[in-house]
Amino acid sequence: MGKKNNNKVKEITPMAEDFAKWYTDVISKTELVDYSPVKGFMVIRPYGYAIWEHIQAAYDQRFKETGHKNMYFPLLIPESLLKKEAEHVEGFAPEVAWVTRGGNKELAEPLCIRPTSETIICSMYAKWLNSYRQLPFLYNQWCSVVRWEKTTRPFLRTSEFLWQEGHTLHETAEEAQEETMKMLNIYRDVAEHILALPVIVGQKSPKERFAGAAETYTMEALMHDGQALQSGTSHNLGQHFTKAFDITYLDRNNQQAYPYHTSWGVSTRLIGGIIMTHGDDNGLVLPPKVAPIQVVILPIAQHKEGVLDRAYALKKSLEENVRVELDDSDNSPGWKFNQWEMKGVPIRLEIGPRDIENNQCILARRDTGEKVSVSLDHINETIKNLLDEIQVNLLNNARKLRDEKTSTATNLEEFKKNIKENPGFIKAMWCGDQDCEDKIKEETGATLRCIPFEDEQETIGDGTCVFCGKHADKMAYFARAY
Amino acid sequence: MGKKNNNKVKEITPMAEDFAKWYTDVISKTELVDYSPVKGFMVIRPYGYAIWEHIQAAYDQRFKETGHKNMYFPLLIPESLLKKEAEHVEGFAPEVAWVTRGGNKELAEPLCIRPTSETIICSMYAKWLNSYRQLPFLYNQWCSVVRWEKTTRPFLRTSEFLWQEGHTLHETAEEAQEETMKMLNIYRDVAEHILALPVIVGQKSPKERFAGAAETYTMEALMHDGQALQSGTSHNLGQHFTKAFDITYLDRNNQQAYPYHTSWGVSTRLIGGIIMTHGDDNGLVLPPKVAPIQVVILPIAQHKEGVLDRAYALKKSLEENVRVELDDSDNSPGWKFNQWEMKGVPIRLEIGPRDIENNQCILARRDTGEKVSVSLDHINETIKNLLDEIQVNLLNNARKLRDEKTSTATNLEEFKKNIKENPGFIKAMWCGDQDCEDKIKEETGATLRCIPFEDEQETIGDGTCVFCGKHADKMAYFARAY
Repeated sequence: MGKKNNNKVKEITPMAEDFAKWYTDVISKTELVDYSPVKGFMVIRPYGYAIWEHIQAAYDQRFKETGHKNMYFPLLIPESLLKKEAEHVEGFAPEVAWVTRGGNKELAEPLCIRPTSETIICSMYAKWLNSYRQLPFLYNQWCSVVRWEKTTRPFLRTSEFLWQEGHTLHETAEEAQEETMKMLNIYRDVAEHILALPVIVGQKSPKERFAGAAETYTMEALMHDGQALQSGTSHNLGQHFTKAFDITYLDRNNQQAYPYHTSWGVSTRLIGGIIMTHGDDNGLVLPPKVAPIQVVILPIAQHKEGVLDRAYALKKSLEENVRVELDDSDNSPGWKFNQWEMKGVPIRLEIGPRDIENNQCILARRDTGEKVSVSLDHINETIKNLLDEIQVNLLNNARKLRDEKTSTATNLEEFKKNIKENPGFIKAMWCGDQDCEDKIKEETGATLRCIPFEDEQETIGDGTCVFCGKHADKMAYFARAY
Repeated sequence: MGKKNNNKVKEITPMAEDFAKWYTDVISKTELVDYSPVKGFMVIRPYGYAIWEHIQAAYDQRFKETGHKNMYFPLLIPESLLKKEAEHVEGFAPEVAWVTRGGNKELAEPLCIRPTSETIICSMYAKWLNSYRQLPFLYNQWCSVVRWEKTTRPFLRTSEFLWQEGHTLHETAEEAQEETMKMLNIYRDVAEHILALPVIVGQKSPKERFAGAAETYTMEALMHDGQALQSGTSHNLGQHFTKAFDITYLDRNNQQAYPYHTSWGVSTRLIGGIIMTHGDDNGLVLPPKVAPIQVVILPIAQHKEGVLDRAYALKKSLEENVRVELDDSDNSPGWKFNQWEMKGVPIRLEIGPRDIENNQCILARRDTGEKVSVSLDHINETIKNLLDEIQVNLLNNARKLRDEKTSTATNLEEFKKNIKENPGFIKAMWCGDQDCEDKIKEETGATLRCIPFEDEQETIGDGTCVFCGKHADKMAYFARAY
């Protein structure tokens, strides 16, 4: 029955030494996740799950404000349904888990655990939709999905993850395109203003499209190590699935018609993005809007008369407005500083006998490390303003870092040099040929992350493809990616 | 591509004619659920899912207020883990679904889809717990579970359902018992005051215990047809699992000890309970606190000038305080009345030209059918008070019905007569012998639903067992059940 006491802050590998190790140190030492007994599957611990709850709440609110409703579809999909849309099955069949036995019997038809739910949802939409009066269908579900992965990393790539998948139907191609863009914008809005993740948005190349999509749009964030993280995708599925699943309705001209279709998703992967964008060698740095604990109060010399009482009164005065905890454990103040710093809590308040005498406390910011004395009068307002300031500061810092790690390349030599010397986004012209895209990947490890929209397009160099040198209409962002 | 237009209110089979048919008519015609392409699995449609979201919110708030945090464990459990606690595997193994293939390969060890998560959670708790300082562990997860069922009915018994499962660890047996009862009380509180479901609470007989529990407590509701619905259970698991999974910690005396353990769950089954408790021959009757739409506004003669404008202004004035919809479709008023009545919306407001002239509208209550004119001044307050009144009225009506359907029996003849003539709860003495329990079931179809706590115990007749006539310490509630 012997076990080690792990009641102390452990060392985190410095980022510069080994970024991957830094990441796994941070996520396990801060108790965000743990490895489960099933290979490739993670346990999301309470501290990690609370972050997800804040992400969910932010997105869910915006989905509802834009008229979407939630629903729930079965976990299991019959093999025959998965196979109905040709590109889709080709894309997903290799990575699904199959249920072949239920209630002690072999099943007549294997059922796969949903890797995504387009097929089963379309089979029901075909049943539900009759008239143009019912359109649009604006529905979403929050659930877990399974994709059998060979190499996994908690939050970034796991065989099971939590996500939302929106599935909508529309009368016209224009409306479906509008929806696709609207959801991409909501994704970006929350990423930037709630998660403090600056993202590049744009179109995927045909090669990187969702299996069965007409067009896939993406938001791409850049991590501390210069690798990109695809952080959310919005697909215009055209009529690929609605035709394959025979979803028809009586249109305004009393004709049978196929509707236009979108789907869009973000997942627990975003938590990985937060960690790798804001974290530092001391551990997590959490944006206030998703931090499970926004303020931690540490009583100093807590055995002295009046200290704990005053600390609890402070907590009480704050807890209506912020998520606050008080650490009155018998660990040393130094241990507590490190512990809560590692946990990424945005603001730490220290309060001891002398502070109480002076009606003040010490306030430390996690993002800048600054420590100042603040009056206990108006402390609620002080905290509120500072949390807002930290939120903005994190986004600005991340933007700055991203910009520093974004370069341009006009030829392959330059491209290779940048990837090596300043890994990050490389903006380069691309002729649209998949062959060039493939070869860039082969030679540099970088993939085409996205083609920005018109308003963010620019011409790099003389406007010729970075690989083949032929004329190119578009600039694209390339990067090595998670 | 031909389809029928189903854009009209369809008939619902009267309850008295065929209760089971009434139920399936109601749930499909009101678009709460649909049958999926996978046998035994249901699709929860937006109108049904919104009810679940309100139930979730009510419970989740109370879990958090009592110190519980959410987390997420993997969907799949290795066979070897499921088998660690003997009674548990015996109880669940026959009804699980097995994943035997993943990513195009046969798995070395089959993985079952969680029927409940005690085993995988315990395997991690064993890793996480070291010291008494960490206790209690107060964690919960919201997820879906799979139990392969032969006969299924949407919400009541399906091969997949949504639920929450709380899993806690404590230093002492007393604390575990206290937690078990605390959660049972939270279950009851929400059932009664949010879902308007009056419930009987008490202990399960050893036969009806959760597989692996020391004690199981339950809340039991009574449906319109006199059948009981087990609506939530709270288990004191003692040290059965903590020993089987070798969960140990260093206690206050510096000794290795096994913690005490609880688990507790409620599920989408509660939605079935709401339907079968409050519904009537016209369809759903939803308690205001969980109704997706609390007020529906129907404009009368909506083509007349000013009507739609005024109706929209009314909606606007209400929507900050209540969940309100306006039906401006081109269906007839009569059709709309029936439609929204069927959907169980607590309050209907009709507003036409004459109402507008008189600064009033017509208000109809779904629970009583009453129709009155109300002033548009203070309409927010009128609605708020009335929603509260309806909420209470539904609980009172359900209590009255439950009491009418509750009888006592002192011998088997009487028991059989009651079951036949006034099906519902039968209060009867039970000696504690499983043989008597089994035979009562054989002869009457009724099962022992629960043994009420001391404060709700009473002596029926001369205090002898309703089956064997021997001395009995306890009164129990019996009923046929879903």
